[in-house]
Amino acid sequence: MARILAARAQAAGPGARLPGSRALIREFAVSATTIQQALDRLVQDGVVVTRPGAGTFVAARREPEPSDTRWQDVTLQASPVDTTGLDLALRTGEPDLLPMAVGYPSSDLGGDLPLSAALARAARRPGVWDPPPVLGLPSLRSWFGQQIGVSPDNIIVTPGTQSALSTIFRAIVPAGESILFATPTYPGALAIARSAGQVAVPVPGDEDGLRPDLLERALERTQARVLYLQPTFANPDGNVLSAERRRKVLDVAARHGLFVVEDDWARWLGHGDPIPPPLIRDDPNGHVITVCSLTKAGAPGLRIGAIAARGQVAARLAALRMVDDFFVSGPLQHAAIDVVTSTAWAGHVRRTAAALGARVNRLTAELRSALPDFTFVPPRGGLSIWLELPAGLDEDALVRAAREQGLAVGPGRDYSIGDHPSGHLRLSFANLTEHQLPDAVARLGAARAAVQA
Amino acid sequence: MARILAARAQAAGPGARLPGSRALIREFAVSATTIQQALDRLVQDGVVVTRPGAGTFVAARREPEPSDTRWQDVTLQASPVDTTGLDLALRTGEPDLLPMAVGYPSSDLGGDLPLSAALARAARRPGVWDPPPVLGLPSLRSWFGQQIGVSPDNIIVTPGTQSALSTIFRAIVPAGESILFATPTYPGALAIARSAGQVAVPVPGDEDGLRPDLLERALERTQARVLYLQPTFANPDGNVLSAERRRKVLDVAARHGLFVVEDDWARWLGHGDPIPPPLIRDDPNGHVITVCSLTKAGAPGLRIGAIAARGQVAARLAALRMVDDFFVSGPLQHAAIDVVTSTAWAGHVRRTAAALGARVNRLTAELRSALPDFTFVPPRGGLSIWLELPAGLDEDALVRAAREQGLAVGPGRDYSIGDHPSGHLRLSFANLTEHQLPDAVARLGAARAAVQA
Repeated sequence: MARILAARAQAAGPGARLPGSRALIREFAVSATTIQQALDRLVQDGVVVTRPGAGTFVAARREPEPSDTRWQDVTLQASPVDTTGLDLALRTGEPDLLPMAVGYPSSDLGGDLPLSAALARAARRPGVWDPPPVLGLPSLRSWFGQQIGVSPDNIIVTPGTQSALSTIFRAIVPAGESILFATPTYPGALAIARSAGQVAVPVPGDEDGLRPDLLERALERTQARVLYLQPTFANPDGNVLSAERRRKVLDVAARHGLFVVEDDWARWLGHGDPIPPPLIRDDPNGHVITVCSLTKAGAPGLRIGAIAARGQVAARLAALRMVDDFFVSGPLQHAAIDVVTSTAWAGHVRRTAAALGARVNRLTAELRSALPDFTFVPPRGGLSIWLELPAGLDEDALVRAAREQGLAVGPGRDYSIGDHPSGHLRLSFANLTEHQLPDAVARLGAARAAVQA
Repeated sequence: MARILAARAQAAGPGARLPGSRALIREFAVSATTIQQALDRLVQDGVVVTRPGAGTFVAARREPEPSDTRWQDVTLQASPVDTTGLDLALRTGEPDLLPMAVGYPSSDLGGDLPLSAALARAARRPGVWDPPPVLGLPSLRSWFGQQIGVSPDNIIVTPGTQSALSTIFRAIVPAGESILFATPTYPGALAIARSAGQVAVPVPGDEDGLRPDLLERALERTQARVLYLQPTFANPDGNVLSAERRRKVLDVAARHGLFVVEDDWARWLGHGDPIPPPLIRDDPNGHVITVCSLTKAGAPGLRIGAIAARGQVAARLAALRMVDDFFVSGPLQHAAIDVVTSTAWAGHVRRTAAALGARVNRLTAELRSALPDFTFVPPRGGLSIWLELPAGLDEDALVRAAREQGLAVGPGRDYSIGDHPSGHLRLSFANLTEHQLPDAVARLGAARAAVQA
């Protein structure tokens, strides 16, 4: 029906009025619901516009670009904005493409959360559309405080992790200065630093996580104020900072007056084993600033996260958060506290862990059988495997060949800092079912064969 | 009931388990609903926590601040973050204080919008929690495009105006460079520029709006890339850029390669007369970047706005928008398009105009009668009057004295750039009913008498 009406709209031309619903119902002998759904669809697609009381009209044709914007090149100069790796991670599924590059779990991962009911309930709360407290709802600050292990007073509610990291980096580090990144690292954090004119400096790790000797050397060289770190189930390699390294990193931080930004993104994405507590719990003196969010374990559209910070820095972060976009929408905050305190939450987290664990086991087995000369450490949390390519196999060529086989994978270079190829791929199992994994590995094998042919 | 349970929780101490709902129902002989509402309240307030399957427990006491965060002073140094004027504009009502400093209209201004029903409907859409397109829903881009007068391709959906301005300023202007502001101006925009390390440069206007001769001189002096301007119903003075000035400003922009950031914040807040079209419609060559939002005419919690930009700059803005926080929550976008295309929207905008017009007329009459030596130009749109104080009357003293009389007003200096006192107050009539206005003016009169005594 929508297609028929769209054709008629096109024929009628911009500005023409469509017949009313009753006339359309008569003409096509279909129900009012069918007509309404078709019209809704055309409104959504921008084909027609409704003017209340007047009717439905064919939308204006898209205008051509203005005549001369070349002057903008001179004013804009080179762009500071860097989105490397983000496009791929945010792209939703294309037909016939297995998405192993995306950053969000499929929405059914842990079974349905009663999110929609919670939001509908939130929508009916009196005053819910008024500005909530700038730092967030007390109940939500209290819940995040309990999860992270700090007082509610130390919590700032944010619209997710990306925004939280942006606020933190810009509040503490002036443009032109260095920020240290435990590598491999998350491209979203790199994009924030680079887009703010900051210099990203790599600090590599090993199987126990970030190397304190290299952290110390990087600090002597750069005098950086901030280290960005994912101590628990790092993206992309699933690495967990060992107990000894936790002490050593905090020791270095204390000696150098360093802030450690702990991106605790995978707090509810363990695969079943006990999950180490947030690093901030080991830190008595306000060095660690922790961020976490409900966008992964809850839903991408539940753009609710939190910053935990202690000491003077908390006031500065709260101030910049307000400047950045005032406050987080009340209905979303109410829906979030409703869902995480519901009886469904614990089961959802448990099922998510079980589903991720099953996927990792299957993917590990498939990779070891089909691609035995590729190496990796199976992660115990998070959404991805960090796959090391055999020596001599070209990363970029493999990414391109995989795409030709209908498989999207994350290029290792997007997760690295430096001028050598990383020799890795990031394989996300967040958006594939367990049963799609053998096919995905087979496509990767075919891609490898194509590169080597 | 909540108070009784809170007292019991306090007596029981942190970690103690509260009796189950049934026991409480028996003990207090009240309904299950009463108990549930009381417990919900305590959870919201952070007094107790519920652990699904285990029961309700008294929440842990708030921890003391960590022992030593003085090292942070050395690392943080002076704060770049500036929130002047924002605190006051976001503060919600305090008892016995007439709020003439807030920035949002009271939620009943234009009568009820069916926002909650729209959000409940949005919550039930399949896939609504998945990531929407990074630039926004096509339907919403199309609607904003029609309102502003550009193609939907030129629209980027944002979570309100504040976030949009932050993206624009940081995308175009490096830290340390100047941004021009038509003064008096909006403190939120000043806060963004200053917090990003940019230098705010004033360009004064007169009754026809921004003075092109001073714009030209400011450009020669600073080589600025961006002018921030509210051509239609400027905050705080309600000024409208005249037709001749529109041409002249665009002419200066063309000659200097200048971006004009048009903050079209009051698009749906006219008081009844025809509203001039957005400045971007007069600009063929991509100089004007327009922002507008639904947070004022819709509701503060409906954090949906738009950027309209043409030429190469649009891609840079879209890239930084993605880096800043990925995308705007799907349910809010769907609720927004639902409401603005509903039959209720036009009536809501009309009633808002009528209510604002009635308030301005009343406030104008009261001020002229009670404070004849204060001067102002009655605005034909927007939410505030820019009141010039009689010579010699101290602005800061008057603000303090008004507060003692139970009246919050905006200090003129928050809306100014420079080192002299502005000699103005901003009086917002957005959050007072027409009938509260005489009382507000009487309190201002009493404050003036107190200052002069």
